[in-house]
Amino acid sequence: MEKAKKFVQEITPMDVDFAQWYTDIVKKAELADYSSVRGCMIIRPYGNAIWENIQRHLDARFKETEHESVAMPLFIPESLLQKEKDHVEGFAPEVAWVTHGGDEELEERLVVRPTSETLFCEHFAKIVQSYKDLPKLYYQWCSVVRWEKTTRPFLRTTEFFWHEGHTIHETKQEAEGHTLMILNMYKDLCENMLAMPVVMGKKTEKEKFAGADDTYTIESLMHDGKALQAGTSHYLGTNFSEAFDITFLDRNGQLQHPHYTTWAVTTRLIGAIIMVHGDDSGLKLPPRIAPIQVVVIPVAQHKEGVLDTARALKDRLKKSFKVKIDDSDKMPGWKFNEYEMKGVPVRVELGPREIENNQAVLVRRDTREKIVVSLDEIETRIQEVLDDIHDSMLSDAKKHVEERTTDCRSMIEIKDVLDNKTGFVRAMWCGDTACEEQIKEETGASSRCIPFEQERIAETCVCCGKPAKEVVYWGRAY
Amino acid sequence: MEKAKKFVQEITPMDVDFAQWYTDIVKKAELADYSSVRGCMIIRPYGNAIWENIQRHLDARFKETEHESVAMPLFIPESLLQKEKDHVEGFAPEVAWVTHGGDEELEERLVVRPTSETLFCEHFAKIVQSYKDLPKLYYQWCSVVRWEKTTRPFLRTTEFFWHEGHTIHETKQEAEGHTLMILNMYKDLCENMLAMPVVMGKKTEKEKFAGADDTYTIESLMHDGKALQAGTSHYLGTNFSEAFDITFLDRNGQLQHPHYTTWAVTTRLIGAIIMVHGDDSGLKLPPRIAPIQVVVIPVAQHKEGVLDTARALKDRLKKSFKVKIDDSDKMPGWKFNEYEMKGVPVRVELGPREIENNQAVLVRRDTREKIVVSLDEIETRIQEVLDDIHDSMLSDAKKHVEERTTDCRSMIEIKDVLDNKTGFVRAMWCGDTACEEQIKEETGASSRCIPFEQERIAETCVCCGKPAKEVVYWGRAY
Repeated sequence: MEKAKKFVQEITPMDVDFAQWYTDIVKKAELADYSSVRGCMIIRPYGNAIWENIQRHLDARFKETEHESVAMPLFIPESLLQKEKDHVEGFAPEVAWVTHGGDEELEERLVVRPTSETLFCEHFAKIVQSYKDLPKLYYQWCSVVRWEKTTRPFLRTTEFFWHEGHTIHETKQEAEGHTLMILNMYKDLCENMLAMPVVMGKKTEKEKFAGADDTYTIESLMHDGKALQAGTSHYLGTNFSEAFDITFLDRNGQLQHPHYTTWAVTTRLIGAIIMVHGDDSGLKLPPRIAPIQVVVIPVAQHKEGVLDTARALKDRLKKSFKVKIDDSDKMPGWKFNEYEMKGVPVRVELGPREIENNQAVLVRRDTREKIVVSLDEIETRIQEVLDDIHDSMLSDAKKHVEERTTDCRSMIEIKDVLDNKTGFVRAMWCGDTACEEQIKEETGASSRCIPFEQERIAETCVCCGKPAKEVVYWGRAY
Repeated sequence: MEKAKKFVQEITPMDVDFAQWYTDIVKKAELADYSSVRGCMIIRPYGNAIWENIQRHLDARFKETEHESVAMPLFIPESLLQKEKDHVEGFAPEVAWVTHGGDEELEERLVVRPTSETLFCEHFAKIVQSYKDLPKLYYQWCSVVRWEKTTRPFLRTTEFFWHEGHTIHETKQEAEGHTLMILNMYKDLCENMLAMPVVMGKKTEKEKFAGADDTYTIESLMHDGKALQAGTSHYLGTNFSEAFDITFLDRNGQLQHPHYTTWAVTTRLIGAIIMVHGDDSGLKLPPRIAPIQVVVIPVAQHKEGVLDTARALKDRLKKSFKVKIDDSDKMPGWKFNEYEMKGVPVRVELGPREIENNQAVLVRRDTREKIVVSLDEIETRIQEVLDDIHDSMLSDAKKHVEERTTDCRSMIEIKDVLDNKTGFVRAMWCGDTACEEQIKEETGASSRCIPFEQERIAETCVCCGKPAKEVVYWGRAY
């Protein structure tokens, strides 16, 4: 058991150093590794399997809602990036530049795409003529590059993975509806797959996407009380379609610019899963996204019949769950620790005594509760336990958000909450960017969103004291 | 019908200008479009759906055989690329260089990956210690960049899409076995999914991958008699594991270098599908890979009951096939042409007369045969027709390869065949690279492979007249 102890000892406890705890989990659960490329990560099989599960879930939802996938080039010519003014200002400082192909210097520099609005728009301008061609509902799975100064695996990396959705529509109303439909799809992913509650709302003018009319967001809260933007959906109006001269003949024979939406979630969701659910034993994976939902561990596997029975059980469970058996020659205690570190929701222990009684022991990763079940009904019981783990993880996370959301009525209060209690702060705002900037400067928090669920917690702006327009969520963020 | 005629007229006939015919199909079938990025294509929804079907098939096969997917960085530092001598020589002249991040010049230039051996090796060196860690069976789906001078959609593009498999093994025997297992998987994809026969063999020393001990290939033949390399699988020996210092303790406690394999197929397979199966009416898609297997076209759809019946039929067929209905207000003739252009294997025509007789008309894309079927058994009949289309496309393509494979016994004969009859040439070879180079220079053909199925068609090398070692396939290639 010496080694097993060592295995766990190597994780820094959350309360001692949250950042180190996070890095330890990324490494020990084998989610990602560093590469010799500055700021770029290697997503290892276990981490990539989580991402593939997220992709599979979303891709099916996209296709159900008539979206079509495409593949756009990795590069954008400098002149193309410059077509939309706000957009280039937002992205130019943080892109990677390709200047040479083989031995030759390029006539025009290329950026490695930080996002692909410009490419989609150039294409839309070519293929859209009439309202009959609309809507175009496109998306692509790919990676993008933003030259980040400080990076952390999943949370902020020079290269990260995402889908980017790009749709164009006849009317503003339709495009806005689409933006919100997608935001709801993301919320559903977070809550029903990742057991992660989110606050839905709109970004302020200051925080919105470079080139957007409106940016909608889902905001989540990590275990350390810091906020994380989990997904965004943008209504870009006709800014891009004007800049790129995308036009269509409408139902009255008039030439119009289509209304544009873009949206994304990224591999940073994996970082959120770690920081919403993890504990000092490691990762804790929501059952519906876990690459391994059930791990079978034979106990006293040298005894006659144990291995055979365990393997037969694995084959049986495989029909209903993502299941793995660990029949290596490591000690059971070591295996227990390893799969706790990997966050596998249910462990099935099977030894001679269990086999004799036609039973198995289920151990929940979240509560560590041991449940003895009959082998005759093990599938049903595991399914119940998995569903219960999901519900319980979601409700724990919800409770955490509620406990760590504080209504503040003064600047001092905001600062005090963020310094000590941490979490989301809700405060009234007059709508003035000057106040937003002052709050940010004084408290180190950024506005997370203007939530859809409004509540008047005071009558005046927390910063200037003028009449308040709306309540805003604030937080120090990843 | 004027428009419908125009639609078809816009395709250049194959015999008039094969290259233009190819480009016309890529455009008119909406497979890909050009972008403003030199040499990079936009893969449009219909083309991407074909690629997704190829991915889905292969990904399942990879996972069945215990491979794990990962995501490696997009960039490779110059120093890392240089670690394996042959490899850097092979790739350095054709890579894209990133020299700046944001406003700053990088201390070390990065290449946009042309292939990722160096990144995988760096990672393997970190994570492998013992034979117990082996094999590692990794792959990733991504795009890679090679700075090509002349490009054509799917066939040769600056950026293209692929998977790259990277595996390391304890022994040479195991690694070689793996290389061939993958090659067989590719052959199976080509024949059983893409209805495309291939010749399997080994590349000559001259034609093998930069850094490999052995390169295995599947070679296919296009309609114009030119060859196309459809997939490759490489045994890289310990060249890379030595260069990158990957070691493991073997079963006897000795430090060893693992044996390495890499393998890939790319989006050029879509180019091959076009050029193996297409005709002067457009694309002809193998049923098992077609994004739309069946298109339902209502005839006289303004007549009462036609649209409802057609839509109900579509919903019913959806349970068994990838099906689409075109109930737009275009003329049926226009629709027929459009889905022929898109290569949809089966068209279902349904008009008032068919409905009255409880029937539908199936029209095969490959033979244009019309088959009247009862609606009661339409699923069974469509499945039969789809299977028959696959078999018949494969056997037509096989016949084409057989007819266009010529055994040659002199240099003059090779040149004559390649100039006039075109296709594969088989000729005996002494095994000397000098002869290979001379044949290439004199005939404009490259050696495609040393086929696994050997036959002694002569006793002497076609070039030097010395005793021949083996038969080689030659061809002018894409």
